[in-house]
Amino acid sequence: MKITIAQTNPIAGDIKANTNNIISSINKFKNLTDVIIFPEMSLTGYPVLDLLFSNHFIPDVEKNLDRIIKVSNDITIILGLPRKSKGLIYNSAIIIQNCKVLGYRDKTHLPSYDVFNEKRYFKSAKTIEPIDILIKDRYYKFGIEICEDLWDDIYDIDVTSELIQKGSEIIVNISASPFQVDRVYQRHAKCYEKVKGLKYFFIYVNMVGAQDELVFDGSSFIMDSNKKILKQCNSFEEQFSTFDSDLDNTKEEILNKNVNHQIFGALKLGVSDYFKKSGFTKGVIGISGGIDSALTATIAAQAIGSKNLMGVMMPTIFTSKNSIKDAKELAKRLKIQFKIIQISDLFNNLSKQIENSFNVDNSSLTNENLQARIRANILMAIANNQNALLFNTGNKTEMGLGYCTIYGDMCGAISVIGDLNKIQVYSLSKWINKTFSEIPIPLNITSKKPSAELRLNQYDPFDYEVVSPLVDEIVNNRRSKSELIKLGYDSKLVTKILDLVRNSEYKRKQSPPGIKISTKAFGIGRRFPIINKYKD
Amino acid sequence: MKITIAQTNPIAGDIKANTNNIISSINKFKNLTDVIIFPEMSLTGYPVLDLLFSNHFIPDVEKNLDRIIKVSNDITIILGLPRKSKGLIYNSAIIIQNCKVLGYRDKTHLPSYDVFNEKRYFKSAKTIEPIDILIKDRYYKFGIEICEDLWDDIYDIDVTSELIQKGSEIIVNISASPFQVDRVYQRHAKCYEKVKGLKYFFIYVNMVGAQDELVFDGSSFIMDSNKKILKQCNSFEEQFSTFDSDLDNTKEEILNKNVNHQIFGALKLGVSDYFKKSGFTKGVIGISGGIDSALTATIAAQAIGSKNLMGVMMPTIFTSKNSIKDAKELAKRLKIQFKIIQISDLFNNLSKQIENSFNVDNSSLTNENLQARIRANILMAIANNQNALLFNTGNKTEMGLGYCTIYGDMCGAISVIGDLNKIQVYSLSKWINKTFSEIPIPLNITSKKPSAELRLNQYDPFDYEVVSPLVDEIVNNRRSKSELIKLGYDSKLVTKILDLVRNSEYKRKQSPPGIKISTKAFGIGRRFPIINKYKD
Repeated sequence: MKITIAQTNPIAGDIKANTNNIISSINKFKNLTDVIIFPEMSLTGYPVLDLLFSNHFIPDVEKNLDRIIKVSNDITIILGLPRKSKGLIYNSAIIIQNCKVLGYRDKTHLPSYDVFNEKRYFKSAKTIEPIDILIKDRYYKFGIEICEDLWDDIYDIDVTSELIQKGSEIIVNISASPFQVDRVYQRHAKCYEKVKGLKYFFIYVNMVGAQDELVFDGSSFIMDSNKKILKQCNSFEEQFSTFDSDLDNTKEEILNKNVNHQIFGALKLGVSDYFKKSGFTKGVIGISGGIDSALTATIAAQAIGSKNLMGVMMPTIFTSKNSIKDAKELAKRLKIQFKIIQISDLFNNLSKQIENSFNVDNSSLTNENLQARIRANILMAIANNQNALLFNTGNKTEMGLGYCTIYGDMCGAISVIGDLNKIQVYSLSKWINKTFSEIPIPLNITSKKPSAELRLNQYDPFDYEVVSPLVDEIVNNRRSKSELIKLGYDSKLVTKILDLVRNSEYKRKQSPPGIKISTKAFGIGRRFPIINKYKD
Repeated sequence: MKITIAQTNPIAGDIKANTNNIISSINKFKNLTDVIIFPEMSLTGYPVLDLLFSNHFIPDVEKNLDRIIKVSNDITIILGLPRKSKGLIYNSAIIIQNCKVLGYRDKTHLPSYDVFNEKRYFKSAKTIEPIDILIKDRYYKFGIEICEDLWDDIYDIDVTSELIQKGSEIIVNISASPFQVDRVYQRHAKCYEKVKGLKYFFIYVNMVGAQDELVFDGSSFIMDSNKKILKQCNSFEEQFSTFDSDLDNTKEEILNKNVNHQIFGALKLGVSDYFKKSGFTKGVIGISGGIDSALTATIAAQAIGSKNLMGVMMPTIFTSKNSIKDAKELAKRLKIQFKIIQISDLFNNLSKQIENSFNVDNSSLTNENLQARIRANILMAIANNQNALLFNTGNKTEMGLGYCTIYGDMCGAISVIGDLNKIQVYSLSKWINKTFSEIPIPLNITSKKPSAELRLNQYDPFDYEVVSPLVDEIVNNRRSKSELIKLGYDSKLVTKILDLVRNSEYKRKQSPPGIKISTKAFGIGRRFPIINKYKD
């Protein structure tokens, strides 16, 4: 039996284009394979969110599905899509063979935690049953499940085991499983638990590509009942991979386990797909000479191409000579366009005009924010003029602390490193410098003391070695004050940081979408009230 | 029997302060009433969202609940709160009497549509049973349900009827039901369906107060089995109302049915509570001489007090003399502080500097956005200097069309009229002028042609009489292209407006929270992908 994993990259809502791609894949593989398997919701993209409630969405799905059914002669297709039955919507797999629908299998477990919200949209499967599929000259019992159905830890039902108990010889899991660090190994480990007793193999088909905050990493695979990986697809790229069960073709691909390698791959795809899918080619980025903008620019240059990226430095009297030198050197190494626009006069004029209007001196905070917002205004004007997207350069630690200016450095179409804490920013920068043939980030940038340079002799008022993991404990692990103190953090520091995190919710409410790489990112997966007086 | 409705206004997460308020109410009413009833989740505020997952949140609820139980001698208390049992969290009512917990009743229906997301947090009740409560000398069967349990239309189970079938003599519904236009009458109408066969009465106790985008309107009531309203609490204010079933005290309060009256009340409370609960007293607003900022300023002045509001006009060469005159006149009538800050020089300098740096003329769009963003920068500087919050002045129609500048006029801590379409903006403005003793909005503002005044002779390129309801059809009613054409809209216009709505999702992602008054507001209740290529 020949099985083709179609690790595809659909566009959310573009049912017609996704269908066209599915049809051309089917036609291409028709004579080369018996079964072709597409990921969860690959007809529509995932997540399509409230598009599912658009009055014409499901009819459009059905219309395009008909086109696929028509070309399914001489092949078996397993495909993820939403289906409506008696007024209820299911997250389903359809099984098509020789222009006939053999059946549907609906998703049982509907994740509704973190970034997921499936109970808003879908009903749960009513039954869990294998399906008999004729391949060549005999019937095979396929157990077809969808993504979360594999992850039984928090549910009463173990879908995979039930499918095997009911006679499934082959398990197919179609997924739209987002990247997070080491997720691919967690998937393997979860399969190790399940494949025992399975007659043939477990086929895991995951979506690839980025959708807003989520990066689907692909990394599809086939595993046999001895926990041997018979096929391993790449991460972060579209791939069609055919497995022939009659041949001993069990060459296990080795995935790079390095955490920074994984993160870099996810961020690069997150950026390139955001541009491609939103129809932009050019990007603009404010470069300060600091580490955050240096790392963001490096990833951006890789993702959209150096020639499409413009770096802009906007110094004031508070900007050090070294920062200008470092920024220039970075741009040179990245081979990106680079402009310096002095903003001291603009800043002084604006600051004075406000002071004169109110006959009061601006506070230091006011003037710091003014500079950040003048920069944002210039960057957005360039983006408007050049039909480019602005990159946000904030990291997770400063986003957590609110150590950033709303409508200033918090601007941008997409936040690239917003889910990396400051320590991870350094770590990834150093890994890039070690890994790339030419060192892109000047060593002075990775070694100097962090500073926003918005007033004289200003340095970031945080010891990031302590504060970055502390913010992560609060955000990722939901720690209370007493727990943090038990972990060894200073009580006064804990109180201060908890207050900063709570009081900056209003800023994050208006922040750009950021690419998720951790277990808990700011964004759709973390929903806090803005008005929030909770202190434990 | 004396029953006290405690229509309270808790603060999200402020468990300690909410508990203090509950305890002082209990002490106050102990000798005046038999039963006191507090709204859904009134111990914690609603919605507290992911605060529920904070490691110490539920223990804090339990600790504070103990304080309430201790003061419950000589009174019966029904109170909404989250409770954890065997690792699962329920949205519950606790029944306390004489320092003992008589029992819990859990919410059956967990709304997870529009702004609601309860399946993310809660488990559904396992059983539906009345509870016997001894009042004076006999037991009464109370059927206690929570908010959505009343609204059985989309569910298989009719909780209220089941409670009555099982012998409930009194139904208590504790709610955190957000305002929308005419919601209060929909609640009455839903109760009309249910009260038949009920021995005594239906007691509906709703939360009051604003939480981020939601305004809980209160409007609690008691209805007998003849559909007679025995008690009607006010909308939009905290109230304690005691009903004595032994007296013929059935004076029905008349609520004002006027839609603009309702909307004004909701917006005013939305603003005043946002300020109060976030600890701000002062507000700043950009006044353009147009209708949107005039209406927003009028509501804001009412909500936070004229003396706390500062209006700022920032003219350029494109600003008409009439606009300046109208803005001045508005500020005078509202008795708010008012400043004029010329931004022509700032705009020209910034525009030229960008043009010189790139040796290219700015596009018209670039220059229009520049002006809007200079204004935002000034307004935010004033907000920083004055420790004030900035009001956003956008309406729902322009938010839908993306006819607004991100990081420019889209800035603000709170959007006041963001759920009113342009027609509603005019309607509410005219109602205010007719209703208030002094006409606050100069008639020239309510009658002139809308213009952003960002270039010469610029007028809004939309016929709002057509486009405002069209955007509402798309946003509120999820209409497809073919449906809209069937409704009589021009096909070319429909295509254009659908594109504008879809392509401005990225802006709305970074927009301020807005006060919800319609069935579908932008914000947490409308979740669309940013990358979205769906065209039906």
